[in-house]
Amino acid sequence: MHASSRVAALHNIATRLRIDSVRATTEAGSGHPTSCCSAADLMAAIFFSEMRYDPRTASNPDNDRFVLSKGHAAPVLYAAWAEAGIISHDALLTLRRFDSDLEGHPTPRLPWVDVATGSLGQGICAAVGIALNARRINSDYRTYVLLGDGEIAEGSVWEAAHAADHEKLDSLCGIVDVNGLGQKGPSLWNHDIKAYVDRWQAFGWHVIAIDGHDMDAILRAFDEARSTRGKPTMIVAKTIKGKGVSFVEGKPGWHGKPFKKGEEFDRAIGDLEKQFVPEELPAAQPRPRSVSRPPAKSPAPLGPPSYALGDKVATREAYGSALARLGANDERVVALDADVGNSTFSEKFEKQYPKRFFEAYIAEQVMIGAAMGFAARGAIPFPSTFAAFLSRAADFIRMAAISGSNIKVAGSHAGVSIGEDGPSHMALEDLAMMRAQPNITVLYPCDAVSTDRLIERMAYHTGPAYMRTSRPKTPVIYGPDDVFRIGGLNVLREAGSDVATVIAAGVTVFEALEAHDLLGKQGITIRVIDLYSVQPIDTATLVRCARETKGQLITVEDHYVAGGIGDAVAAAVAGHGFAVHRLAVREIPRSGAPEQLLDYYGISARHIVAAVTEGRRA
Amino acid sequence: MHASSRVAALHNIATRLRIDSVRATTEAGSGHPTSCCSAADLMAAIFFSEMRYDPRTASNPDNDRFVLSKGHAAPVLYAAWAEAGIISHDALLTLRRFDSDLEGHPTPRLPWVDVATGSLGQGICAAVGIALNARRINSDYRTYVLLGDGEIAEGSVWEAAHAADHEKLDSLCGIVDVNGLGQKGPSLWNHDIKAYVDRWQAFGWHVIAIDGHDMDAILRAFDEARSTRGKPTMIVAKTIKGKGVSFVEGKPGWHGKPFKKGEEFDRAIGDLEKQFVPEELPAAQPRPRSVSRPPAKSPAPLGPPSYALGDKVATREAYGSALARLGANDERVVALDADVGNSTFSEKFEKQYPKRFFEAYIAEQVMIGAAMGFAARGAIPFPSTFAAFLSRAADFIRMAAISGSNIKVAGSHAGVSIGEDGPSHMALEDLAMMRAQPNITVLYPCDAVSTDRLIERMAYHTGPAYMRTSRPKTPVIYGPDDVFRIGGLNVLREAGSDVATVIAAGVTVFEALEAHDLLGKQGITIRVIDLYSVQPIDTATLVRCARETKGQLITVEDHYVAGGIGDAVAAAVAGHGFAVHRLAVREIPRSGAPEQLLDYYGISARHIVAAVTEGRRA
Repeated sequence: MHASSRVAALHNIATRLRIDSVRATTEAGSGHPTSCCSAADLMAAIFFSEMRYDPRTASNPDNDRFVLSKGHAAPVLYAAWAEAGIISHDALLTLRRFDSDLEGHPTPRLPWVDVATGSLGQGICAAVGIALNARRINSDYRTYVLLGDGEIAEGSVWEAAHAADHEKLDSLCGIVDVNGLGQKGPSLWNHDIKAYVDRWQAFGWHVIAIDGHDMDAILRAFDEARSTRGKPTMIVAKTIKGKGVSFVEGKPGWHGKPFKKGEEFDRAIGDLEKQFVPEELPAAQPRPRSVSRPPAKSPAPLGPPSYALGDKVATREAYGSALARLGANDERVVALDADVGNSTFSEKFEKQYPKRFFEAYIAEQVMIGAAMGFAARGAIPFPSTFAAFLSRAADFIRMAAISGSNIKVAGSHAGVSIGEDGPSHMALEDLAMMRAQPNITVLYPCDAVSTDRLIERMAYHTGPAYMRTSRPKTPVIYGPDDVFRIGGLNVLREAGSDVATVIAAGVTVFEALEAHDLLGKQGITIRVIDLYSVQPIDTATLVRCARETKGQLITVEDHYVAGGIGDAVAAAVAGHGFAVHRLAVREIPRSGAPEQLLDYYGISARHIVAAVTEGRRA
Repeated sequence: MHASSRVAALHNIATRLRIDSVRATTEAGSGHPTSCCSAADLMAAIFFSEMRYDPRTASNPDNDRFVLSKGHAAPVLYAAWAEAGIISHDALLTLRRFDSDLEGHPTPRLPWVDVATGSLGQGICAAVGIALNARRINSDYRTYVLLGDGEIAEGSVWEAAHAADHEKLDSLCGIVDVNGLGQKGPSLWNHDIKAYVDRWQAFGWHVIAIDGHDMDAILRAFDEARSTRGKPTMIVAKTIKGKGVSFVEGKPGWHGKPFKKGEEFDRAIGDLEKQFVPEELPAAQPRPRSVSRPPAKSPAPLGPPSYALGDKVATREAYGSALARLGANDERVVALDADVGNSTFSEKFEKQYPKRFFEAYIAEQVMIGAAMGFAARGAIPFPSTFAAFLSRAADFIRMAAISGSNIKVAGSHAGVSIGEDGPSHMALEDLAMMRAQPNITVLYPCDAVSTDRLIERMAYHTGPAYMRTSRPKTPVIYGPDDVFRIGGLNVLREAGSDVATVIAAGVTVFEALEAHDLLGKQGITIRVIDLYSVQPIDTATLVRCARETKGQLITVEDHYVAGGIGDAVAAAVAGHGFAVHRLAVREIPRSGAPEQLLDYYGISARHIVAAVTEGRRA
């Protein structure tokens, strides 16, 4: 079936990949050569026989895609690029250096990397999104993802498994490099190939078990995968960790250890160099089909939404409406949800654009991971769920930040204002989670108009962004001419006599406005700020207001005290010597009515009045 | 096999559970009656035939345990307690009220609840830990966990699946209430019972598929589960959402909707009341065996570790040594790890106490979940992995905080100081994640002695706690008489002439000490604080130092700027009008040598010197 010359050539490529991986890690003094060696034959077949891609053009939308889910095998990926002429062989020896983009684990600083990997079990989730994207752009590109056997223990892998099964993603081909060894010792299922086969089959995949060092078998498996219709394929490849280096083959204790310069390194290279075989010229590698596509149109601005002042609309509902409006305007917009589209209101988008909506069911990790895959291939994905449950995907959000991924995350039902469902459903740490990442934009609108306007801003701002929405209905306070921008805020009440600046966002904006009116009856005026952009933050205006209100800054937020709006404002004004009085939730809350909870946990109008009054006394 | 009278009695109990669930949710005006109705027959069998427990004594260590993984069915759980005489029937009508402990989703405010649920896919992970704990205390109690079909899509469920399989946990019995409907529409596999059976079988469980409304079949299934050896059992119960209320049975659109008072409610109750059947007295319910155990001994204090000043020891290694010392002293201590025990050094504990060590493989969610289960049953669990990968379990940590769970989490390899592995492996948001939870103690020692001493403090402090450790070796700076306490700090350098207070922790303590020496050569003195307890924080000493150093506070941390030490100190001193100058990582970092990265990202001694100098100029 496969000419022997092709097999011989690929075998030699695999040997070169091993040599390059060993060289690079020894030069770096750290890294995972044995994890590269187990995968080298698979990598040679993937990159030099199976995949159709144009090595000169990473951006070609019809290139087959490859994701290294076992990110610690980065050196073998870089070696494959060198073999393909994408980077120089010399560059390989800069591995893990500060002045090199060949990092310890792959990141999208490199144009051929779609998503950063290194946190295991994530690459396959992104691969699901990349494969789904092929449908969106009507491309026949295929998506390949190489996993380690250790990472199969991650639950996220099984979220990807059922998502790909549900979507019948036959353009997705996974390969598990079952070298049987984890970091510390044997992996969970070691070399029990049946354990892998049974599980993937039960999850609806076409499964092919092979010897991962038998090049003929590898090529046949890829042929079979490519001709399999209606389901994704998982190739379970039994391999040997450290394959090709006699004194480490299959031995524990060699994870993440480079060979020492000198005798050890020389012996490893010697072992490998012996493995070259005579070869003839390999068959020419296939290239991607060129697909002609109409030039991308710049979407027209959305224009103002049709809300009237005083309308009572939950920001979560305004989110859904805005997303549907945006979807009409821009075909790149896709939405994903985790079985709560009737609560986040992403169902408004789904109803109009069912082909661009992906139901992740109750599986938040693959939802965010797939969104990262979509974003990497040019879509503008909006994954949404209850903000509390985004914490299930915190590690994915962390890696999305590392990737600079263009995902637009929406979390609904923030804070104690959700009421009766209780603390499991209250997001009180989502701002802390999102703000911690220095490149995530964090938006938190209080009414329907600002929500709508900020969705558009968020969509066309490059990089990861988060919008926090609320469960209760809130009155529309903005009109069609009000302007919102990333990094902006709105001063809602301002007078020369203001004794304090109260900074609120979301539901607490209305508490602050009420406090303004209550204090007004006593002849006291306060400034009220709607901090709809929590990150980046409008430092200049905050500092100006602090100066104009005698340094009295009070923040009030439906969030725990650590990592939220209070901390954001405090960090912004610290350089000018101002401190911040924080009103926030300070204990684990319980079920109750929303107004009752806002009051009990110290973030209602009454508490703002007290803080202002106390500040005046101090 | 089962006397018909028993079946009739259980059937009637199930009807009463349905009626109570409907009543409570209608009274509350929110909640999930239809999710209760599908589970009612299963609940009746579990609580009134299968489980051996003493309803008067929640604390009996030999009681069989029940976890409601589908936490939104809380009303049916509360109804079962009322039926068992644990709470009053009147109490049921306080559901979801602020003055009631019967919250929207169960929390351990109630003594029969081991772990808070409501975030799906977590209860089964805790159940794994609860079942493992039976082995620790040599009890034959069994652990039951009821799951919804929707939550089976969560990857964490499959982590629990392989963990229970690997541990051959035959005392664990899961029940999936396959009512076929999620929140928004059909669940992922709807009523495809084979889809569930195949997956659980592939994961090594004994699987029994039944009609979840056929009481005879339910009882037979539990008999079969109880007699199954060497593997856990999953009962896949096909049910009907809203079962018993004719006009909602199996209908979508009724998730999380109580019946409206009046006609709708009356009709539902009428439907249910018609279902009572004549019954004879049921068989007496089994009780747990009483096991005689020696009285618990109070562990003796550990005494100082044997490090010498100047020894170079990584805090992660000191963590492992301390844990092993603690384990010798206290049999309640157990350790868990996610395949990186040779990096976190939990392997030091494993080598000495293999029976109290649990390898979770690369599955951080079940590691934290199982730790919560252990903690709920009296163990003192220390789960550990790279701090970066604790973010994979962020939602579990959130729920552990809600549970007030007595888990002792350790995260190694914090910050850019890990060097070459790159950003995927650098925890730079773990302090933000942990600090966000108001009841999590956050410790961050800089040397081996403080690590050792704080492990003991952490173990015997009730409630969730986190210790952050570092990869690089650092010199021992403390002696055997130094005292460390939760909420404490150490002033390492102090003089009357100090011009600034530099607050550091972990690796940056040594940068601060170096800055102290560099500035000393210019005749400038600074105060240096080792903030080993980040939460709670020693506000009084920080305020005193701020006053004594002209308000110049500089924090320096190997963490992103948001949510870390700078924010913690700023929040502490804000009430006294002080602001904080934060040195922290402010962008996504890259691979490189540790010292290079500390310097490039602005947290080395040089930057501290610059900040002090600048502060003096301002």
